[in-house]
Amino acid sequence: VTRWRLLLEYDGTGLVGWQRQTNGRSVQQAVEEAVERFSGETVTVVAAGRTDAGVHALGQVAHFDLTRPSEPDTVRDAVNFYLKPEAIGVLEASVVDDAFHARFDAVERSYRYRILNRAAPATLTRDRVWFVPVPLDAEAMRRAARVLVGRHDFTTFRSAECQSKSPLKTLDELDVVRSGEEIVIEARAPSFLHNQVRRMVGSLKLIGDGKWHAADLAAALAARDGTRSGPTAQAAGLYLVSVRY
Amino acid sequence: VTRWRLLLEYDGTGLVGWQRQTNGRSVQQAVEEAVERFSGETVTVVAAGRTDAGVHALGQVAHFDLTRPSEPDTVRDAVNFYLKPEAIGVLEASVVDDAFHARFDAVERSYRYRILNRAAPATLTRDRVWFVPVPLDAEAMRRAARVLVGRHDFTTFRSAECQSKSPLKTLDELDVVRSGEEIVIEARAPSFLHNQVRRMVGSLKLIGDGKWHAADLAAALAARDGTRSGPTAQAAGLYLVSVRY
Repeated sequence: VTRWRLLLEYDGTGLVGWQRQTNGRSVQQAVEEAVERFSGETVTVVAAGRTDAGVHALGQVAHFDLTRPSEPDTVRDAVNFYLKPEAIGVLEASVVDDAFHARFDAVERSYRYRILNRAAPATLTRDRVWFVPVPLDAEAMRRAARVLVGRHDFTTFRSAECQSKSPLKTLDELDVVRSGEEIVIEARAPSFLHNQVRRMVGSLKLIGDGKWHAADLAAALAARDGTRSGPTAQAAGLYLVSVRY
Repeated sequence: VTRWRLLLEYDGTGLVGWQRQTNGRSVQQAVEEAVERFSGETVTVVAAGRTDAGVHALGQVAHFDLTRPSEPDTVRDAVNFYLKPEAIGVLEASVVDDAFHARFDAVERSYRYRILNRAAPATLTRDRVWFVPVPLDAEAMRRAARVLVGRHDFTTFRSAECQSKSPLKTLDELDVVRSGEEIVIEARAPSFLHNQVRRMVGSLKLIGDGKWHAADLAAALAARDGTRSGPTAQAAGLYLVSVRY
């Protein structure tokens, strides 16, 4: 048996997210079916991050096992061939140690969130950004974001469906940068709670449009109360950028 | 009567191009209908560049006349409102001199062409790039492109349907830069022949994959023969970036 690692990129639009669901097409199902059509073997594909419906990936990592040997470029090209016409691509395929686990061995996840902050709605970036027409103060968002960096109880920013045993997480980076008409938020941590990035972004947006001050964000964090978060930012602006092992 | 100028951005996917056609929805029709629904007036909207089906715009410029006065931000927001759900956006609306003509007064057009040059097909940039899996030598393309800069008879690179009176055009810039997995080509000229950018890009691609040398490109140009061009690069990778007056 050979354990394979895939580096995956996908457009989450119209998909129900990474994990198999009964209510629509998932990235997991699409990748498993493509591997099965190529290899003739039944596989389970395990990913580093179980992205939600509509969330994109630039560098998702996944693993699965195959009995018969293949060349890395063959696996990459064949899986890409059978993935058509899905907007899911294998950037790299590589053989890894039998013990490698895409989810449990990951030591850091990096996410990006893109806000389109201008008067005109998204056209070429539709389904790729959160469109916010009211002018946001990115510098105020950047300063306030520091409050969330570090080891905290992030109960305020977890969804009701979050399955994590503990709400204690260490946030290593939460940066906010304006790049022309976009505000880009980079978040990096060993792991995140369910909806944590989207709730942090929804809360930072309240700072950006002046509804909240930095102290309100600190108070929301300290409250450890899910009802104290800003709204959950929409899925379309979120990208799983990379996973570190 | 007030003459209005619009700065427009659009996703050309699924549209028949700028100009009204009987076989599908055009950008012109969508913008004219949105202006008419807002103003109650019948208008003709004239654009700087009549982009083809599937071609995108980051900075198309257009003009039209309205009898009743309005504020610029009102025109921008109202036209955007009535453009929904089209992937067409008004970035700016402004009042211009009665004599302003979006097409005839333009002194320079800038186009960008994006090639995705990697093994995996486009996912998040699908319909936004030309996917070329074979590795291209961007530096060779950049050097060869110099042959086309300047004042030349571009008959080789015009389509059979080109309505321009003369094939003589001055190409001020044709730059090729690799940016990660993408090769980006920037072209700038007072005006272009029909399909000129896409034919130049299709020819440069032959340089990039080693089928042509720079001398072949020079010979193709000198031949002034449409059958000597490389293939026409697909519409999805082309963007009208800006128009100068």
